[in-house]
Amino acid sequence: MKKSLLALALLGAFAGVAQAQTAVQIYGNVDAGLVKRSDQTLAIGKRANNTLGFKGTEELGDGLKAIFQLEIRYEPDTGTLESVTRPLFQGQSRVGLQGDFGMVRLGRGLTAFQETSTGFEPFHGIPSPVGFQTDLTVAGYTSDPLSPAGNSNNRFSNAVFYNSNVFGGGFQVNLTVGTKEANSGVAIVGRGTAAAPQYAANAEASTTPISFSGTYKNGPVGAMVAYEKNAVETRLWSIGGSLMATPDLKLMATYQRADKTHTTPFNWAALGIQGPKTKAWVLGANYTMGAGKFLAGYGQKSPDATAKTQQFSLGYEYSLSKRTYLYVDASNKKANTVVATPAQSVTIRTYDIGLNHSF
Amino acid sequence: MKKSLLALALLGAFAGVAQAQTAVQIYGNVDAGLVKRSDQTLAIGKRANNTLGFKGTEELGDGLKAIFQLEIRYEPDTGTLESVTRPLFQGQSRVGLQGDFGMVRLGRGLTAFQETSTGFEPFHGIPSPVGFQTDLTVAGYTSDPLSPAGNSNNRFSNAVFYNSNVFGGGFQVNLTVGTKEANSGVAIVGRGTAAAPQYAANAEASTTPISFSGTYKNGPVGAMVAYEKNAVETRLWSIGGSLMATPDLKLMATYQRADKTHTTPFNWAALGIQGPKTKAWVLGANYTMGAGKFLAGYGQKSPDATAKTQQFSLGYEYSLSKRTYLYVDASNKKANTVVATPAQSVTIRTYDIGLNHSF
Amino acid sequence: MKKSLLALALLGAFAGVAQAQTAVQIYGNVDAGLVKRSDQTLAIGKRANNTLGFKGTEELGDGLKAIFQLEIRYEPDTGTLESVTRPLFQGQSRVGLQGDFGMVRLGRGLTAFQETSTGFEPFHGIPSPVGFQTDLTVAGYTSDPLSPAGNSNNRFSNAVFYNSNVFGGGFQVNLTVGTKEANSGVAIVGRGTAAAPQYAANAEASTTPISFSGTYKNGPVGAMVAYEKNAVETRLWSIGGSLMATPDLKLMATYQRADKTHTTPFNWAALGIQGPKTKAWVLGANYTMGAGKFLAGYGQKSPDATAKTQQFSLGYEYSLSKRTYLYVDASNKKANTVVATPAQSVTIRTYDIGLNHSF
Repeated sequence: MKKSLLALALLGAFAGVAQAQTAVQIYGNVDAGLVKRSDQTLAIGKRANNTLGFKGTEELGDGLKAIFQLEIRYEPDTGTLESVTRPLFQGQSRVGLQGDFGMVRLGRGLTAFQETSTGFEPFHGIPSPVGFQTDLTVAGYTSDPLSPAGNSNNRFSNAVFYNSNVFGGGFQVNLTVGTKEANSGVAIVGRGTAAAPQYAANAEASTTPISFSGTYKNGPVGAMVAYEKNAVETRLWSIGGSLMATPDLKLMATYQRADKTHTTPFNWAALGIQGPKTKAWVLGANYTMGAGKFLAGYGQKSPDATAKTQQFSLGYEYSLSKRTYLYVDASNKKANTVVATPAQSVTIRTYDIGLNHSF
Repeated sequence: MKKSLLALALLGAFAGVAQAQTAVQIYGNVDAGLVKRSDQTLAIGKRANNTLGFKGTEELGDGLKAIFQLEIRYEPDTGTLESVTRPLFQGQSRVGLQGDFGMVRLGRGLTAFQETSTGFEPFHGIPSPVGFQTDLTVAGYTSDPLSPAGNSNNRFSNAVFYNSNVFGGGFQVNLTVGTKEANSGVAIVGRGTAAAPQYAANAEASTTPISFSGTYKNGPVGAMVAYEKNAVETRLWSIGGSLMATPDLKLMATYQRADKTHTTPFNWAALGIQGPKTKAWVLGANYTMGAGKFLAGYGQKSPDATAKTQQFSLGYEYSLSKRTYLYVDASNKKANTVVATPAQSVTIRTYDIGLNHSF
Repeated sequence: MKKSLLALALLGAFAGVAQAQTAVQIYGNVDAGLVKRSDQTLAIGKRANNTLGFKGTEELGDGLKAIFQLEIRYEPDTGTLESVTRPLFQGQSRVGLQGDFGMVRLGRGLTAFQETSTGFEPFHGIPSPVGFQTDLTVAGYTSDPLSPAGNSNNRFSNAVFYNSNVFGGGFQVNLTVGTKEANSGVAIVGRGTAAAPQYAANAEASTTPISFSGTYKNGPVGAMVAYEKNAVETRLWSIGGSLMATPDLKLMATYQRADKTHTTPFNWAALGIQGPKTKAWVLGANYTMGAGKFLAGYGQKSPDATAKTQQFSLGYEYSLSKRTYLYVDASNKKANTVVATPAQSVTIRTYDIGLNHSF
């Protein structure tokens, strides 16, 4: 009797789904904690991105699949989207096909480089100031400078995303190509003037934005090479490597250079502004001990003619389950001030403690 | 053993749902492709509306049901809602009851006319410029002119929606009645002046907005008559017919007239602006061939004292499954310019190729 | 044969969910009806809040659970969020742990007092003008005055929420503590001037916001004491009681005082503005009769030196199921005008009829 009631309940529950021949998977995570920056009041904040997503896969036969993913990003401390100018699906909005040829998707998402580089960063790519991902790991580079103010720094909108399958015993190539279409972006003065900026508001790209990464992964060894060129012709090169030195210890390193010559005034030194070329490197380690994991990283960023940025971070994650962990971090970052002469720097210490729950 | 694990997993998965005594169905689609308009740069864009919706039905006994539907609309190429001034649930937000009397819903959604007319348009009502729905099929008419700028053109907010059940061997009547309440709309100068517009910003409607459609469907024959009057007393009449000439060939046609006399200045001809009356017609055909479907349409729109709009479109859809298809379209539209004297027109060609995936 | 197809469908449907080791529960409600206020045109509106939420619980072992909840709030008549300045997850966005110690959550949600007081209000805390919750039950108090304009009046952002388990045969304590961090709030002139407001725009709190409630529930008797202090040091005290006089009749009452001395100019009487202290009380009754429920309430609010607010409301709810009910209400509210001298009042009558559907 109970059995048949269950069967009925399931049938009822799936009447709609069966009709649509699919199941949409809802996923996401909530990450909230206490954050104390040495220059700010105690706050409730986050360490990782907060997501609520919808995704699905449809088998089309012969190994072909249709795939989609829509991902909301939000701030749990205030319930808002990450910013009023950020899209509802800031995380990603993509649809595509997957098969023997790899995966092709259209829409908006992390560029090939940005997605790949998180695997070589000791705080697994979190945007928190205790991590290195959003500044040193990208050498201060921005993937999408012609988007609305406050928009994402590491995504392409209006793009085609290609990921190869793994081949040759561990190789994979990833390619993102954007269009030149305008997207309500902010003006960029660059080599122009405030009255006649190099890129006007809502400008089209002057080149096709492109991002490439190639990775190799075999046993304990991982490696990456990447190149990206954004809509205002800033270029980024990056290489990275990782090694599982022991089953519990992962070591990782990246080195990256950004070249924004295209938008830097010729007389940048006389203007006292940062030069066109930035170099950065990050060393990191993750050490697993039972349910706990230690994270450590040190890195430097050296723009021309300004003080060096130096960051050292320590973290600890304690897993309550595969989906839920507590964390505590401490970070010290001596950051350069871009426009001061002589070059100066300011030191910010960041501490956080919180909870990350995936669903 | 496996069986009982599955049973447990299902029980667990449905603990929440069982408690809530319902299943919410998540549905939607993602449509993205390459779009080239003759006057614009190559873009990633869409052909159909993109939706993410939540809906459900509750059986109340005696054939009575409670129903709700909430539908997000977004742009997959940028991850944004369709426009910053469009509602989160731009698609629809309605709740109501369904029974022997038909279906009554409250909220926001497509008007009776707008929802009905998509069945007589050769590109099944997509908002792409390759289709006819948003311009010729509605004779340039706007259902909700007193909503915020950029809002929907074919919906009523603050409305009651009635749909009869099918009766008399194929008849159905649909009625939408709005309230007069203000909704932060833009000003409409109309017969007033810029300083004293006929409808001020955030004006109430001067009449109760109403939309009616009656349809007949029996075997291969379909027919429609419709009438709508919006908040600023523009009137629209439309008739349509469709015929399955063979099991694979559907022919369709609509004729519509819009009359905006109420908001057109008396001296419109002297002002060199478009007159109050617009006539339009669209002929279309769909031809199914295996997994493929050809779509073709031709239509004209003839406002008073301006050049004629003429549009010809061809499309092809190739189904990878019941939920996923590829498409390619080409369209040529010679559109009138509303305010020029003498009347002029500009020709825009649109090509697209892309993927539509429903879930 | 059918059986195995179903099994396959279910397995397929749950491939994703099984992988994520959880089930996200989607829940919410849609409430829409006709509303007629004596000073406004007939409108489609709401009576209760409209929600679409995502929540989940993960068992961590030893009685420990991880919990999260994200709740969208929207207006079904227009499909919009409640206001452009309100967060996407206006309802709540919280994550935390639950166990022997009670429940600790971080994020944004109703304060301890605001959440508790709804249980002692005859219209179960609905925000409609026919209910008492948003004005008399809180003595005109606002929980979050330093949030962006139009934001919620009864929540803390950036807060820690603690709820004890029930102890001592019916006691429970609830505590909400906010941080002082700024949140893009509006300026509050208070004891300052327009040029130098007491709290500037985007000001930090001058005290740690805190909210406490203690409840007792045993058999037919319920009781509450509560205290709250917001970011601008307004204080609120409240007591409440409820009694199931018969199995069908619930009686309830609250008394509350708000003290906004901290932001009231010293010469408030001379300025002709409302004084710092407000007292209010609400009496209510719910009477269940079959599928129907009668709701009745009367209350007064007496700010210093202005006319008294008096409200009388009657309502009726008719359940079509456990999840769906029809409602009809009538309310008469004589509200004080804050700044007039001598004190004046205006009477508004509100009538509504509609449908509430939970999912």
